[in-house]
Amino acid sequence: MPSLINGNFKGKDIISLDQFTPSDLKILFSQTDKMKKIAMNAKPSKILNGNIITLLFYEPSSRTFGSFSAAIKQLGGQTVEIINPQQFSSVAKGETFEDTIRVFEAYCDAIVLRHPQEGSAKAASDAAFFVPIISAGDGIGEHPTQALLDLYTIHEKFKRLNNLTLLFTGDILYGRTVHSLLRGLSLFENNTVYLLSPKELKLSRGDYEKFSKKLKIVEIDNESQIPKGDVWYWTRVQKERFSNLSKYNKVKTKFTLTPELVKKYAGKNTILMHPLPRVGEIDPRVDSDPRALYLRNQTRNGMYVRMALIGLVLGKL
Amino acid sequence: MPSLINGNFKGKDIISLDQFTPSDLKILFSQTDKMKKIAMNAKPSKILNGNIITLLFYEPSSRTFGSFSAAIKQLGGQTVEIINPQQFSSVAKGETFEDTIRVFEAYCDAIVLRHPQEGSAKAASDAAFFVPIISAGDGIGEHPTQALLDLYTIHEKFKRLNNLTLLFTGDILYGRTVHSLLRGLSLFENNTVYLLSPKELKLSRGDYEKFSKKLKIVEIDNESQIPKGDVWYWTRVQKERFSNLSKYNKVKTKFTLTPELVKKYAGKNTILMHPLPRVGEIDPRVDSDPRALYLRNQTRNGMYVRMALIGLVLGKL
Amino acid sequence: MPSLINGNFKGKDIISLDQFTPSDLKILFSQTDKMKKIAMNAKPSKILNGNIITLLFYEPSSRTFGSFSAAIKQLGGQTVEIINPQQFSSVAKGETFEDTIRVFEAYCDAIVLRHPQEGSAKAASDAAFFVPIISAGDGIGEHPTQALLDLYTIHEKFKRLNNLTLLFTGDILYGRTVHSLLRGLSLFENNTVYLLSPKELKLSRGDYEKFSKKLKIVEIDNESQIPKGDVWYWTRVQKERFSNLSKYNKVKTKFTLTPELVKKYAGKNTILMHPLPRVGEIDPRVDSDPRALYLRNQTRNGMYVRMALIGLVLGKL
Repeated sequence: MPSLINGNFKGKDIISLDQFTPSDLKILFSQTDKMKKIAMNAKPSKILNGNIITLLFYEPSSRTFGSFSAAIKQLGGQTVEIINPQQFSSVAKGETFEDTIRVFEAYCDAIVLRHPQEGSAKAASDAAFFVPIISAGDGIGEHPTQALLDLYTIHEKFKRLNNLTLLFTGDILYGRTVHSLLRGLSLFENNTVYLLSPKELKLSRGDYEKFSKKLKIVEIDNESQIPKGDVWYWTRVQKERFSNLSKYNKVKTKFTLTPELVKKYAGKNTILMHPLPRVGEIDPRVDSDPRALYLRNQTRNGMYVRMALIGLVLGKL
Repeated sequence: MPSLINGNFKGKDIISLDQFTPSDLKILFSQTDKMKKIAMNAKPSKILNGNIITLLFYEPSSRTFGSFSAAIKQLGGQTVEIINPQQFSSVAKGETFEDTIRVFEAYCDAIVLRHPQEGSAKAASDAAFFVPIISAGDGIGEHPTQALLDLYTIHEKFKRLNNLTLLFTGDILYGRTVHSLLRGLSLFENNTVYLLSPKELKLSRGDYEKFSKKLKIVEIDNESQIPKGDVWYWTRVQKERFSNLSKYNKVKTKFTLTPELVKKYAGKNTILMHPLPRVGEIDPRVDSDPRALYLRNQTRNGMYVRMALIGLVLGKL
Repeated sequence: MPSLINGNFKGKDIISLDQFTPSDLKILFSQTDKMKKIAMNAKPSKILNGNIITLLFYEPSSRTFGSFSAAIKQLGGQTVEIINPQQFSSVAKGETFEDTIRVFEAYCDAIVLRHPQEGSAKAASDAAFFVPIISAGDGIGEHPTQALLDLYTIHEKFKRLNNLTLLFTGDILYGRTVHSLLRGLSLFENNTVYLLSPKELKLSRGDYEKFSKKLKIVEIDNESQIPKGDVWYWTRVQKERFSNLSKYNKVKTKFTLTPELVKKYAGKNTILMHPLPRVGEIDPRVDSDPRALYLRNQTRNGMYVRMALIGLVLGKL
């Protein structure tokens, strides 16, 4: 595992949510609050003036790419943007991943890496001599900044990450964001998590055991059991996980977030989240509900958290 | 139709030439004159410092992309550049166009949208909560900044958009730029338009009726009828419009702009325009004629008009 | 051939190493020393503030692209980045290369061109009316900035480009970098060059004659004949040059740079270079040797040389 942050972000590779202690999150989120003000301020920031960050994306992920690109430019930094280098000459000629990383680090102050293969972020971190690696997701591995933006969004609303009641709905078995959030919430005391999913997509028994050590987990299978709660976190059922398409079609929108459901079960302060993209599991009529954060704060917070993280890692905050 | 500009560009979506009144064009072109000076000045502009504009291109159109990208950077702004998002994960996973627009608006101050489907710019404008949409062309729909740069180029030369005699040659039936210019010229008094085309590519009778209400239209079918005129606007016959290739080959360069034709019929002040690309209908020997603006003012003016438009829409001019 | 530089870089197209005299190299390398300091300095440079340079890449070459992009941004300039324009509408519609160049020059102060076809850089230079063209490689033609960074790396170490002993290993027949370096070294006095290659990849007799006029050339076929020397320059055997794959497999790593070889034959000050990518002909255990410059100075110097070249061509240094 990459070295822990322990209060000092400067020069650290950011590979996993497991690097963060509660006090690291406190530092990060406090800086994120400031970043939000900078981004909303008309006056341009010079915090990253003179810094160049390479966005090295082995798979095009337009929203993560756009969020990182904007985050850097919001702070006055510049990017070198390389998409699909594996289609380019050097990699195609047989260059190792390690050499590619070491060539690109020669041009910049940090590399933001997106890669389809689990473990790539760690491998890049091992290869780089000079500059920090910030993971933008490595396949079925981790996507730490997604987890951080979700935690920040909850923290922004409630000013705490303990004593919370949350509902997760959809793909609890495979969903990467759900697992990351469960890990993040496990760092804090006294959180209760309700899990609502088709029975094919329940949390694995191994994960149930693991997370039960720290969280109070309540598995439910019916909308009538939905708690009022602080956070409702909806997720997409991932088509690519099903070999049998008719099975997918049966469960894909088994639980749909509708204005009626919100009206019936949600509290006045319950926030509605979704990692996006959604493909039918949230009725667009919910979008205008002020508690729906998925197309507002949650998306914007991704940029703010990335601003804070890059600024801290480059030692500029 | 999107709301009219009516002298106030700030925050407006720019979807159609029909939004512009003659006095809007006057404001825009007066700012465009200033932008030209800024671009030619060695001193960097700070007008868009701190602004981020997303270039969201669902089809790669290198010159429109390059012109917008340069326009923004000429004013000290930054871009987030997303090409072919439909090949990327979220859109491929089934996300709606509306959700995509609303995710990207979270990162920026405006979205420049290019899309192959007619109506997309309007749809984006309806979806966006917070930031203005500027169309960079939506399929067989409109490409408003192309029309504006053509009008500006004529205005730059003659200081007026009325009392003009113009010749349009080539594809008068389908050519988008021709139709846009006819609409633009219809806003002003006393313009005469000659149309020279193969008979397969004449203006439709419906359009003839419509435009005749405001313009004096003279259809000709022979080079000997070409007027001296103020503007000669040549266009490419579009191969993709013909199912029968031998028909295309017969008409594609039926009317070719040559130095001989210019010498015989053009006036001393007649300007020679073409929206580009050209594929044989202008002899390269014409390029060095000082009246040939297609690879000079007309191309550069695209950047200047886009600078002015973005600056006005963001409230910075 | 494009006009010589003769001490005045401003506005010149950079197409070939043959444009450079020894005193041009002196000017360039002296500026490169300064660029290195600028890049390593925390304070952002404003040298190219207000300048826009188009990166027009007809083939994606991620490292050359990244190096140029970073070089421009290190100096405070901006880029317009166009990758694979031949897949885009205008070129696909049949536009000539010359027209494409002339459209893009309308948006910027210089064009950095990468193209798969030999002669393209010269053709672009002939087409451009207003802005200088800087070649980033044209197929089997030249890649002048690669040659310049290699010469600079040698000069940085030894403060001279004469009285040197060098070893080139690998593909001496086809290797573009080897040929460029031989041409560069021929500008200076009293250089000795050892060539070690499989017999299928020896220098052609024509080139042997040509380079022998200025350089002392010693062809060897055995590692035991390797000189201590000032520079060891290793190259990849290019698979794409072989129609017979078993022949390629036989020779591809016939000569491999290993710690053992370095220990046995290299001098204390011998520098180890490679143009990259490598695919087996350098043992990764050599990477940590301080004399190994291929993933350190040599890569970084590419960015510094490009900074100096662009700054000089734009008249800003």
